[in-house]
Amino acid sequence: MTLADSTPTQIAAAVQAAESAAPTWARSSGAERARLLRGLATALGGARDILVPLADRETGLGAARLSGEIDRTAFQLRGFADLVEGGAAFAHTDDAAVAGAPPVGHPYLQRVRVPLGPVAMFSASNFPFAFSVLGGDTASALAAGCPVVVKAHPGHAELSRAVMALAQKVVAEQGAPAGVLGMVEGAGIEVGVGLVQQPAVAAVAFTGSFRGGRALEQVALQRPRPIPFFGELGSINPVVPLPGALKANGTALAQGLAASIAMGCGQFCTSPGVVVLPTGAEGDAFVATLSQALAAQTPHAMLNAPIRAGFERGVQAWGQHAKLQPLLTERAAADAPPRPFLAQVSAADFIADEHLHEEVFGPAALVVRTRDLAQAAQVLQAIGGSLTVTLWGFEGATEPGAAEVELVRNATQIAGRVLFAGVPTGVAVTQGQQHGGPYPSSTAPASTSVGYAALDRFLRPVALQDPPAWLAQRAGVPV
Amino acid sequence: MTLADSTPTQIAAAVQAAESAAPTWARSSGAERARLLRGLATALGGARDILVPLADRETGLGAARLSGEIDRTAFQLRGFADLVEGGAAFAHTDDAAVAGAPPVGHPYLQRVRVPLGPVAMFSASNFPFAFSVLGGDTASALAAGCPVVVKAHPGHAELSRAVMALAQKVVAEQGAPAGVLGMVEGAGIEVGVGLVQQPAVAAVAFTGSFRGGRALEQVALQRPRPIPFFGELGSINPVVPLPGALKANGTALAQGLAASIAMGCGQFCTSPGVVVLPTGAEGDAFVATLSQALAAQTPHAMLNAPIRAGFERGVQAWGQHAKLQPLLTERAAADAPPRPFLAQVSAADFIADEHLHEEVFGPAALVVRTRDLAQAAQVLQAIGGSLTVTLWGFEGATEPGAAEVELVRNATQIAGRVLFAGVPTGVAVTQGQQHGGPYPSSTAPASTSVGYAALDRFLRPVALQDPPAWLAQRAGVPV
Repeated sequence: MTLADSTPTQIAAAVQAAESAAPTWARSSGAERARLLRGLATALGGARDILVPLADRETGLGAARLSGEIDRTAFQLRGFADLVEGGAAFAHTDDAAVAGAPPVGHPYLQRVRVPLGPVAMFSASNFPFAFSVLGGDTASALAAGCPVVVKAHPGHAELSRAVMALAQKVVAEQGAPAGVLGMVEGAGIEVGVGLVQQPAVAAVAFTGSFRGGRALEQVALQRPRPIPFFGELGSINPVVPLPGALKANGTALAQGLAASIAMGCGQFCTSPGVVVLPTGAEGDAFVATLSQALAAQTPHAMLNAPIRAGFERGVQAWGQHAKLQPLLTERAAADAPPRPFLAQVSAADFIADEHLHEEVFGPAALVVRTRDLAQAAQVLQAIGGSLTVTLWGFEGATEPGAAEVELVRNATQIAGRVLFAGVPTGVAVTQGQQHGGPYPSSTAPASTSVGYAALDRFLRPVALQDPPAWLAQRAGVPV
Repeated sequence: MTLADSTPTQIAAAVQAAESAAPTWARSSGAERARLLRGLATALGGARDILVPLADRETGLGAARLSGEIDRTAFQLRGFADLVEGGAAFAHTDDAAVAGAPPVGHPYLQRVRVPLGPVAMFSASNFPFAFSVLGGDTASALAAGCPVVVKAHPGHAELSRAVMALAQKVVAEQGAPAGVLGMVEGAGIEVGVGLVQQPAVAAVAFTGSFRGGRALEQVALQRPRPIPFFGELGSINPVVPLPGALKANGTALAQGLAASIAMGCGQFCTSPGVVVLPTGAEGDAFVATLSQALAAQTPHAMLNAPIRAGFERGVQAWGQHAKLQPLLTERAAADAPPRPFLAQVSAADFIADEHLHEEVFGPAALVVRTRDLAQAAQVLQAIGGSLTVTLWGFEGATEPGAAEVELVRNATQIAGRVLFAGVPTGVAVTQGQQHGGPYPSSTAPASTSVGYAALDRFLRPVALQDPPAWLAQRAGVPV
């Protein structure tokens, strides 16, 4: 198919429609928002037989995975429906007046939250449903009372059109304001820049590459009126097994880790990219099992040719790196799915070279060998912001030694999610989730792009001082 | 006195001390933090007789105001002590595991919040206690578990040293980590830039000018690892009386407004800078009363010569503006306190010239005349982000007409606080407060720099997935 970039006029029209819809949608009730979100979930699930083959043609992710992703996306839409129906978007604090002079005395303040306004939502390549047209950003923004203008991902443009068409049918059927959901398309950065620069756009939600995200963040900040930019830019997700875990359970853990590295052809933002292992025999045994298990993996094709080319460039650079010892070197033909890559490096060399801390998007990982837990903590600090850190071997009922606790502390310092079991791939959509860590994994580390706290991104607190009765009685529902 | 800029070595040492203190302070209990905050409050109040004359010499704000500001600052420290003792910093979500396959099934997630780490805190000129060494930013950061490195304001450098000395005495007496509170000094921007660039600084809290704040925000974002920047940059705080309010109560409102404009010589970030009034006789009468009442005000001297010079430049530019009709033109000698300034402009001319939307820091305001409420709403939209909007005349028990409601909606869209009674000067330190609005009033409009929600700025969510029992039982207290 030919992709036509949206023209500046089309971009302006999409944002204009969203701006027109914004006041109506902002004052919609929880029930109205829930109804739309559930209608979208139902429409998505109902079109599964058409959407899955379309998505597979554009992304090659396979019917099973894509159908499961529809389930997740519908679940997410329904989850936000339940959340907003329960009043989450209208939560407010009634701070009664206190008589007397300040600082003790104060007027009545009702602290409410107002929807930011139209949200520009940038779809990701690797989740054509769950982080796309009707994905988590859209679901949370709609639940918050904000219209959404989607920037479709060119990697699944036809699918995006099909999903948007069925979404707009639901919007029309329910009589929701037409501009509550719109879309622009473009292969390069120009359309995205044009969208973010529209004065009526009030916030940006972005999932994608570090480079693309940082560039758009600058556009958002350099507008005459800067706006919040919620960017999820990926990360390398270190995994750190304690020596005890290697001894007790090394083989099974290595096999599980290999599967996680290769899962989805490594095209998950939580794909493990660094394995921190002690020097010595047990570490060596783990590396051997991991290498074997990863060699036995047969990842499916990557999403598209540019992503595949980026992966090959990345592993080629690693393969030629003087300090790296390659462990898996098999390469695949350009028209076959890629082969996993694994290499080993000392902690000192890893810490010293910041290029090794960058994500290679795909089924590739580095094994970093450390002399002790203190050095493992240094490796985490060198990596910096990450969506996840996985720590294995902390299951004991009592607090472990100081070095182990210090490792946990370092993990919580750099990551948004710290796992003590399992693998980082697979991000539950639930209240306790946090998908977003310090820079460079996210541009807004206090926010999450997965889970129900994602709603909070699109609401801004406002203190109503001495509100009249008719206003206070709205109890957090915007006028 | 001679102000010596902190050297790069001194800046690095202050941050190094904070970094060393960070882990210990992060795992301190609510009781320990409360004890320090209350100790600081007591020390501040106890040194009143020394500090007030010192502050008055440096700022000229007068003993009554300065003593009251000590009360407010001590109240604030104690308020954050109560808050953290009550567990606010350790609030967490226990999201129990759900059996089954995703998307329904998920592991146990405990969502906690971790302190960001050392906070660089930039004092303001206009509140030598409440937004300075032991002000709201410091109190909230300490309560969150973060060490603080203060950038002292050169306008009250000796006072800052005195307060820091007594604070460090309290820290030592209580056996808190020495680096939990430190300070650097500098007259220009270099010291502040050097502070923000220190790798161990994890966040910045800033109260000050638009220009200074934006420059430092860029420094924070252009670090190799960008960090959150919480900047409160001031605003012009429009006041909009409805025609009914003019009729019922115009004289008293105009007199109260004049006092608010002149209060503290207009050197408050919530000082009203724009009065939106209808054309016609009632608006004319209000303008006449306001002019008279403002002419009768005798503001005290401004904080320092550069601030005074900035005020005079601002009102001179307004005085010569072709579209403005000056209402108060009296100027004072350079060595006398400034005279208030007032001018009038049509809504169309105001909307068209964005220079008129910029803050003139001091006792100056513009009267903007509108033909109807729809145009008043346009004036608010032209102004954009503001800390406050004040709306008078909405006291009725039932919802008013569409135009009035639309005005309220516009006010909540641009402001962090919307008042329906009283004047915007005077910001209560309480749970319901929101001091921070959209750009340009604040760089982080979802956060507040006054009130107890200010704590949230310095905590970042982390999801602990399947945490071991010893960790889960810490119930939100960092390791």
